[in-house]
Amino acid sequence: MASENLSAVLYKKRDTVPQCDIVLENRPVPEPGDNEVLLQMHSVGICGSDVSYWLKGRIGDFIVKDHMVIGHEAAGRVVKCGKNVSHLKQGDRVAIEPGYPLSNDEFSKTGRYNLSKVFFCATPPDDGNLCRFYKHNADFCYKLPDNVSYEEGALIEPLSVGIHACRRAEVTLGHTVFVCGAGPIGLMSLLVSKAMGASKIVVTDLFQNRLDMAKKLGADYILKIERGKSPQDVAKQVEELLGGMPDRTIECTGAESAIQTGIYATKSGGCLLLVGLGPPTVNVPIVNAACREVDIKGVFRYCNTYPAAIQMLSSGQVNVKPLVTHRYPLEETEEAFSVTRAGEGIKVMLKCDPSDQNP
Amino acid sequence: MASENLSAVLYKKRDTVPQCDIVLENRPVPEPGDNEVLLQMHSVGICGSDVSYWLKGRIGDFIVKDHMVIGHEAAGRVVKCGKNVSHLKQGDRVAIEPGYPLSNDEFSKTGRYNLSKVFFCATPPDDGNLCRFYKHNADFCYKLPDNVSYEEGALIEPLSVGIHACRRAEVTLGHTVFVCGAGPIGLMSLLVSKAMGASKIVVTDLFQNRLDMAKKLGADYILKIERGKSPQDVAKQVEELLGGMPDRTIECTGAESAIQTGIYATKSGGCLLLVGLGPPTVNVPIVNAACREVDIKGVFRYCNTYPAAIQMLSSGQVNVKPLVTHRYPLEETEEAFSVTRAGEGIKVMLKCDPSDQNP
Amino acid sequence: MASENLSAVLYKKRDTVPQCDIVLENRPVPEPGDNEVLLQMHSVGICGSDVSYWLKGRIGDFIVKDHMVIGHEAAGRVVKCGKNVSHLKQGDRVAIEPGYPLSNDEFSKTGRYNLSKVFFCATPPDDGNLCRFYKHNADFCYKLPDNVSYEEGALIEPLSVGIHACRRAEVTLGHTVFVCGAGPIGLMSLLVSKAMGASKIVVTDLFQNRLDMAKKLGADYILKIERGKSPQDVAKQVEELLGGMPDRTIECTGAESAIQTGIYATKSGGCLLLVGLGPPTVNVPIVNAACREVDIKGVFRYCNTYPAAIQMLSSGQVNVKPLVTHRYPLEETEEAFSVTRAGEGIKVMLKCDPSDQNP
Amino acid sequence: MASENLSAVLYKKRDTVPQCDIVLENRPVPEPGDNEVLLQMHSVGICGSDVSYWLKGRIGDFIVKDHMVIGHEAAGRVVKCGKNVSHLKQGDRVAIEPGYPLSNDEFSKTGRYNLSKVFFCATPPDDGNLCRFYKHNADFCYKLPDNVSYEEGALIEPLSVGIHACRRAEVTLGHTVFVCGAGPIGLMSLLVSKAMGASKIVVTDLFQNRLDMAKKLGADYILKIERGKSPQDVAKQVEELLGGMPDRTIECTGAESAIQTGIYATKSGGCLLLVGLGPPTVNVPIVNAACREVDIKGVFRYCNTYPAAIQMLSSGQVNVKPLVTHRYPLEETEEAFSVTRAGEGIKVMLKCDPSDQNP
Ligand SMILES: NC(=O)c1ccc[n+]([C@@H]2O[C@H](COP(=O)([O-])OP(=O)(O)OC[C@H]3O[C@@H](n4cnc5c(N)ncnc54)[C@H](O)[C@@H]3O)[C@@H](O)[C@H]2O)c1
Ligand SMILES: NC(=O)c1ccc[n+]([C@@H]2O[C@H](COP(=O)([O-])OP(=O)(O)OC[C@H]3O[C@@H](n4cnc5c(N)ncnc54)[C@H](O)[C@@H]3O)[C@@H](O)[C@H]2O)c1
Ligand SMILES: NC(=O)c1ccc[n+]([C@@H]2O[C@H](COP(=O)([O-])OP(=O)(O)OC[C@H]3O[C@@H](n4cnc5c(N)ncnc54)[C@H](O)[C@@H]3O)[C@@H](O)[C@H]2O)c1
Ligand SMILES: NC(=O)c1ccc[n+]([C@@H]2O[C@H](COP(=O)([O-])OP(=O)(O)OC[C@H]3O[C@@H](n4cnc5c(N)ncnc54)[C@H](O)[C@@H]3O)[C@@H](O)[C@H]2O)c1
Ligand SMILES: [Zn+2]
Ligand SMILES: [Zn+2]
Ligand SMILES: [Zn+2]
Ligand SMILES: [Zn+2]
Repeated sequence: MASENLSAVLYKKRDTVPQCDIVLENRPVPEPGDNEVLLQMHSVGICGSDVSYWLKGRIGDFIVKDHMVIGHEAAGRVVKCGKNVSHLKQGDRVAIEPGYPLSNDEFSKTGRYNLSKVFFCATPPDDGNLCRFYKHNADFCYKLPDNVSYEEGALIEPLSVGIHACRRAEVTLGHTVFVCGAGPIGLMSLLVSKAMGASKIVVTDLFQNRLDMAKKLGADYILKIERGKSPQDVAKQVEELLGGMPDRTIECTGAESAIQTGIYATKSGGCLLLVGLGPPTVNVPIVNAACREVDIKGVFRYCNTYPAAIQMLSSGQVNVKPLVTHRYPLEETEEAFSVTRAGEGIKVMLKCDPSDQNP
Repeated sequence: MASENLSAVLYKKRDTVPQCDIVLENRPVPEPGDNEVLLQMHSVGICGSDVSYWLKGRIGDFIVKDHMVIGHEAAGRVVKCGKNVSHLKQGDRVAIEPGYPLSNDEFSKTGRYNLSKVFFCATPPDDGNLCRFYKHNADFCYKLPDNVSYEEGALIEPLSVGIHACRRAEVTLGHTVFVCGAGPIGLMSLLVSKAMGASKIVVTDLFQNRLDMAKKLGADYILKIERGKSPQDVAKQVEELLGGMPDRTIECTGAESAIQTGIYATKSGGCLLLVGLGPPTVNVPIVNAACREVDIKGVFRYCNTYPAAIQMLSSGQVNVKPLVTHRYPLEETEEAFSVTRAGEGIKVMLKCDPSDQNP
Repeated sequence: MASENLSAVLYKKRDTVPQCDIVLENRPVPEPGDNEVLLQMHSVGICGSDVSYWLKGRIGDFIVKDHMVIGHEAAGRVVKCGKNVSHLKQGDRVAIEPGYPLSNDEFSKTGRYNLSKVFFCATPPDDGNLCRFYKHNADFCYKLPDNVSYEEGALIEPLSVGIHACRRAEVTLGHTVFVCGAGPIGLMSLLVSKAMGASKIVVTDLFQNRLDMAKKLGADYILKIERGKSPQDVAKQVEELLGGMPDRTIECTGAESAIQTGIYATKSGGCLLLVGLGPPTVNVPIVNAACREVDIKGVFRYCNTYPAAIQMLSSGQVNVKPLVTHRYPLEETEEAFSVTRAGEGIKVMLKCDPSDQNP
Repeated sequence: MASENLSAVLYKKRDTVPQCDIVLENRPVPEPGDNEVLLQMHSVGICGSDVSYWLKGRIGDFIVKDHMVIGHEAAGRVVKCGKNVSHLKQGDRVAIEPGYPLSNDEFSKTGRYNLSKVFFCATPPDDGNLCRFYKHNADFCYKLPDNVSYEEGALIEPLSVGIHACRRAEVTLGHTVFVCGAGPIGLMSLLVSKAMGASKIVVTDLFQNRLDMAKKLGADYILKIERGKSPQDVAKQVEELLGGMPDRTIECTGAESAIQTGIYATKSGGCLLLVGLGPPTVNVPIVNAACREVDIKGVFRYCNTYPAAIQMLSSGQVNVKPLVTHRYPLEETEEAFSVTRAGEGIKVMLKCDPSDQNP
């Protein structure tokens, strides 16, 4: 086994500037515990949150103290199993679920472990997995079938957000859906809505290139939001495109105006699902929502999504491959982050295995 | 049958003042249609909305145009059946569900007829039933068992709001519940929460007399809200009283600060149920709610509550009788409305049958 | 408008033989009531139940007394509207939901109108719609979009059984599904399962031609049942094909052995959905089901399926067209029934409009 | 700490007889692991399954091989905590949930850990806790509030079966419920149904003394089953008593005729919940159930019931104390089992702490 472990680490510059440095440094190859596996990392996607930690050193109350390995949308290959691990073996290709509960509390026992106190890759103080070798709780590593690539495995992370959102929104047969925002999360919500039976979907964004991708991935209608349009006006446009108010709205921007639009747009008795995270408090037309029984629900990451996601990818129900628009070797992490920050493309993949840079 | 039909009618004074006049006038006794019953009215409770129409001539977009019979929390006795009516007969004592769908649309077909276009007593332009004789859709009149009084029958209307709220909030076994506001609706939500299995309930209000009634009806804890306390502080107090964050919050005031409190207070994975209707838009800590998966749901009146309510009253599971604090004959309607406006007591009953003014 | 109304009527031969005669006779063109529409019938599919009434004069307690117009899987064109009808107009192409509730009872109010006392086409004593002109409750006629054909409209009836079954089974993302029986109902359940997110589906039948159709419609695996195999053995085969026990089983044969297989096959915590109707009582391994929390649920027809079905057909989510294997003009009804009885093909369509025999 | 650990152990006599011997023997006091607590046992209830292991040496595929400590309905006091245990401390009084998952599999992750491969007290090969000292997974020991006694803590085990059954049956406000069988499990289902909002409950049994207990615990109606009555006849009687078919049936006998009765009795759209475990296969009127959409669901023990149960007991919502009809010191275990076998009384408690034999 390789004795070196190149890792992409955020370092806090100094207290007066929020931005961190991305440093590539060699770290020891970790030793897996009894219930862990050691993984040779293959593909790691860059997420908006990774970029936020880099640029701002924090997200909400999560603050990078000194340094932290970045990366949490990942897949790799098992190189060593802890002694209690029986469902995986050396050589297995796996997708890594980055978060797992740290105790067997009420949330964990009832199947909502995302609400427990969790370990989560690249959320301070927990290190991520943008590196060559990484160890993880084996129960949260899922074997990939032969027909699912490492990159698809890495994309299960943002796909999971879409699954959790659509499950909580109870998207189903014949629903019309309004997806607000065509970033990776909005696009995943689009794909999952279709897979769960939505019949017509409209996707909005501020930028045409993102909308083009939405169209390519199967959006029935796309709508470019013009600054200055009132939420009611946008809601009206959505209704006209769909020939009726959408049964469900999946909000994937966090923008206050988009949340307001989501309420006005959604059909009575429907649901507005909040995925996007923006300003901590927003002004909402609450009586409109309440009196039309439009439920407002949020998601915090996901739980119990990986097995379903693997089934979906393996069976070809969803095709996430077009989301990967850029690839860089681990050594070019900073370049990859800059491209992501610039909003070019959709998903940027870092390739961690020097001997296999394929998808 | 009596040939006169004394009725309590709101009359718009003139365009420049919002307030209406309450006029007692004689109206013709109506003739029931094929699917209707004619009822001799017995007991009609006064609701906050009745008072709003009187004082402001409107609620939101519902505006009293010229005149409107007031009253919608009602019970009476069948005096004549339309020719298609088979489940009721002359002499039956019934509770009147004031709203019913006007068409067989998607909402109505799927069992959520409260979201359909409806007829609703004493919501403009529909006349209410604070009068001697009134005809109603027979399918929405429910026979009362012998051990359920007319007044209990009338109280099924506000009780229904509590049932619909607790159903949508999915209150169940072992839940702790925070009921915000101890008006008739908050108190009904308290009773229904208990009946559905809630184990500990805290009720808040601004006024001690209302809290005393909550205590009398079974609240485990009461909390007087002091103006100036922050929503976070009140949330903390609620948590301390319950020994943990409440699983469910039923908001029955509509106040912005109370909605905010409801979000901060509710346990992750729980639900904030909005019953209270206040300002059309409010500022809410949306990221706090979304990231803890606290669902925000509203109710619009109720549907499918009357049969369950009758079962509950007949079996003694809930005792709503203590809510009636004042009684007046129909002739003293204006006095009764004044008492309600003054916030004295909880529920004021008008007695419409001159020959039987009992509960 | 045509003055004659050729209709396919079952006539009871005499009391000693169960079989009925199919008689083509002219009946008066009916006059629509206030809430009804008169339809020129276009396409009517033949269902197993139609054949049963023909051959046995009864299904369970439903007995053909003297005569009954046959047919209930139908679509047509509006030629006249009753005076209260506003959502349809002359010339609209519509799918006909054959059953609707006769009273506003508890089931109907709560959205489960299929459990109410209903009118149902071609279920004694109610006449069906295999004829030239037919009137129906307008609220249960659904306008077809331009891109949905009459035959697709007629196929919504069996599709609805599949929708109702998959909804009650709560088929969802990533589920593996076992569909037992590849008749029209099993095939529809296959299509709907896919549309709701099932990732892998195995379909069984006794006959290869039916399995071939299942394969053509998207089954991932097909399995020919050999007489003599034990239910446990078949369950094992299903598990091997899917690489695990199915999350859901949709039983579409009614055969006792298939029900038993369904219980043994289904994953713990899953659901066996009974669509098939066979012998009134069967022997089931109840402790196996109960101790693994495999829920056993049935369906009675469907409710609230037509709007979703039209969305699915219009959006192209499901393609039901290949199910139509034979077409006959109304005049050749008996020939069409004979072909259905013989089990050739899947769905036989009768074409009722002499001027348009297209799909 | 005491150095001896008197334990009630079943010993297989010899291969030719099914019955086991109950032997009281001294075993070493166990040492708790890092995530375990050592408990001084206080009260242990005898369950039908304990008696079955004693008399038949097996239940289904679970077979007593050589010897097994009996007992699983238990409460005790913490005497030592493993090093990772933080939510409990020495002296805490706790209820012991006897089953916990052995791996973090799909069932466990989704909150249905009762369907996982589990450790379960006194189910071969796992030892139970009818002894002086016992160690257990600390996450499955729940601190009792001061106002909940040890015996109530022990009774949470059978109460949990009732909770899980009523949850799966979705008993709620205004439901009428038919509980079949008035043993400990039927009685717990009665109590829980009431607590979840059921308005009227009928309980059946073969024996008057059991029905008297049901009446005492709040049954609205009791019905003594006479051998020879057909399931349809009993269903009719139930309907007459309730004034309508029950919304839910909780079957707690396992008898074939009772399961059949449960199907005939339950209202269309309702649910028959199978708790009782009888013959492995039974004959059921499946078309009756399927065509009326009466769902048939089983339970396997329970999950996530202990916290809710403690809330219910502490708040006084249910009173389980009357179920304890007999008490014996641990030394008289065999006598206690004989009384249980004879069907005298309802719940027999063994008192394991020589210095405190109080409830
Ligand atoms: N709740 C969770 O657990 C969770 C998990 C992952 C991501 N998120 C959040 O989801 C959101 C989306 O993530 P992403 O990675 O796709 O981000 P992104 O920034 O790549 O995409 C957001 C898109 O929304 C568009 N947009 C902005 N304002 C808009 C408006 N008013 N109307 C329409 N479109 C608008 C932007 O142009 C952009 O394309 C972010 O807020 C992120 O923080 C939440
Ligand atoms: N959504 C619906 O379908 C529906 C139906 C009926 C009533 N409502 C609404 O429910 C609300 C309650 O109705 P009601 O008849 O009980 O009214 P009410 O005015 O009698 O009672 C409201 C109570 O809330 C208390 N209160 C006010 N601000 C508070 C705060 N910040 N914290 C705690 N308590 C506070 C008041 O002192 C009062 O006792 C009203 O807003 C009404 O419009 C809604
Ligand atoms: N519950 C309802 O509301 C409802 C509605 C419509 C139809 N149905 C029932 O659904 C069933 C299917 O209807 P259909 O029109 O598709 O009937 P069909 O007779 O055309 O199809 C049944 C198929 O099952 C196959 N089959 C028989 N035994 C089998 C076994 N042991 N294993 C596997 N396959 C087997 C047959 O070969 C046949 O292809 C019928 O029993 C019908 O009565 C019920
Ligand atoms: N599914 C599970 O996880 C689970 C858990 C615990 C117990 N159980 C089962 O629940 C059942 C009840 O347990 P229990 O401890 O109360 O048993 P029990 O034997 O004490 O009680 C059963 C009662 O049913 C009565 N009975 C028998 N036949 C009847 C009939 N035809 N109609 C009405 N009453 C009849 C008996 O007289 C007896 O009083 C048992 O079958 C047990 O195996 C299942
Ligand atoms: Zn991410
Ligand atoms: Zn009111
Ligand atoms: Zn059919
Ligand atoms: Zn037990």
